[in-house]
Amino acid sequence: MANLDQDKWFTEISDRDGSAFSLRINKKLDEKQSPFQKVEMYDTTDFGNLMIIDGCTMVTTRENFFYHEMISHPALYSHPNPKNVVIIGGGDCGTLREVLKHPSVETAHQIDIDEVVTEMSLKYFPELCESNADPRAKVMFDDGIKYMAEAAPESIDVIIVDGTDPVGPGEGLFNHAFYTSCLKALRSGGILVQQSESPLMHMPLLIEMRQAMLDVGFVDLQTLPFPQPIYPSGLWSVTLARKDEKFASFREGDAQQAPFETEYYNAGIHHGALATPGFMKRAFNK
Amino acid sequence: MANLDQDKWFTEISDRDGSAFSLRINKKLDEKQSPFQKVEMYDTTDFGNLMIIDGCTMVTTRENFFYHEMISHPALYSHPNPKNVVIIGGGDCGTLREVLKHPSVETAHQIDIDEVVTEMSLKYFPELCESNADPRAKVMFDDGIKYMAEAAPESIDVIIVDGTDPVGPGEGLFNHAFYTSCLKALRSGGILVQQSESPLMHMPLLIEMRQAMLDVGFVDLQTLPFPQPIYPSGLWSVTLARKDEKFASFREGDAQQAPFETEYYNAGIHHGALATPGFMKRAFNK
Repeated sequence: MANLDQDKWFTEISDRDGSAFSLRINKKLDEKQSPFQKVEMYDTTDFGNLMIIDGCTMVTTRENFFYHEMISHPALYSHPNPKNVVIIGGGDCGTLREVLKHPSVETAHQIDIDEVVTEMSLKYFPELCESNADPRAKVMFDDGIKYMAEAAPESIDVIIVDGTDPVGPGEGLFNHAFYTSCLKALRSGGILVQQSESPLMHMPLLIEMRQAMLDVGFVDLQTLPFPQPIYPSGLWSVTLARKDEKFASFREGDAQQAPFETEYYNAGIHHGALATPGFMKRAFNK
Repeated sequence: MANLDQDKWFTEISDRDGSAFSLRINKKLDEKQSPFQKVEMYDTTDFGNLMIIDGCTMVTTRENFFYHEMISHPALYSHPNPKNVVIIGGGDCGTLREVLKHPSVETAHQIDIDEVVTEMSLKYFPELCESNADPRAKVMFDDGIKYMAEAAPESIDVIIVDGTDPVGPGEGLFNHAFYTSCLKALRSGGILVQQSESPLMHMPLLIEMRQAMLDVGFVDLQTLPFPQPIYPSGLWSVTLARKDEKFASFREGDAQQAPFETEYYNAGIHHGALATPGFMKRAFNK
């Protein structure tokens, strides 16, 4: 059985999944304990820089595009005219960058509780932060749950919940109270989108999240799977919830004529992600 | 940094990728050294049974459906009327099972060099072998390269190369001589499909494979990505090569009305897999 030299590898054990994933490292770059969590940075041999939060792999240079594109573009192209966008979490600023690629967006407010994540990202993932100075962007460090609870009613078109797993500071982002705040803050036609874990490994959690969204009054849901190489099972998902109407087709023409390049997302990928595989469909219908 | 107790985890280190993947095991079930390779079986805590060949994770109960469906159904639904199918490799018999779900198929011949793989699969993945006794099936243990070299010209509609990585016994399945044999053995309109590694991690190999297929005379190619949780990067691919004409649309109506259930594949997933992401498109066009 292979033995991983702990000086050369970073390993994340996922106890709930019975799996572990390791990346080979050249060296540790940084470490900072914030009031909320421990943030570590490594230089890996094959994945570029790697951000670890409380022992969990979060972001690498090489493959973060899957996640950042899929948490942004499907929701924004499903809204007819997204002007005001709020990102809860998202401290690495990669989601903010994708959102600001949409010409219809007039404001994009990012509220992450932990400034240290953004400090580290500015230093080690500067490409993800390249739109932080966009005049439409506002980068805040505050409690996203409180921010949403106090948001003006019907003031937001798209809310993106780009948080960690439902443990630690991310826990309050997966419950009825938070979803109720989001529903209230969305305009008619508005969309909430949240990272929703692995459809292969975490189906009970995903079903619970979907049920909570429906419970508070969201009218329609879409769960889109996509590749996520460094997270357990390599398959992740986002769940979109629409405030007061069923999802219509997304703006396919606009997606095909996107005024920006993507690494993963395109109109066909969007269609494919909406073609829920049998194993997910049957779990949702149980 | 997390430490993996070697008695409780099976770890595969992928040196070429700078990554490693581990599954937690309850116990070792079996081990057999064949003339070609070492085959091991484990009972895992969360992925069911696990087959290891020469230290590499090959198949688990929980997620093999991604691979087996994606190496079979896209190719079979891209052929107008696949009657005679040959599988090179595929000793776990999961691909054979998927192929035989297609009512048009009259013969499905599987040629794997190593009988031990099928012995192990019969014992530990009986569900994958449930169609081995189908009168249309013929399970042979022989050299697939030799088999294809000696196959009658224009006798096969779909050739599925379900082999290991291009090292060890699988090496000869990735070269001009083998592809030339396949081209000759295919009928007009015929399709060769081969597992083609990770588009995220192994693009040079994938490009080389595609070029070799074109070099020998295949007229059109399609590379379809799909999730593959236990292989490096969690994202894998199959490449389809068409003998003497461009790929037309696949038989979408038939795929929508498939007379069998699938866990992953469906017509929408097929479309999505054909919507080549930017990072792959740009690499192919270089």
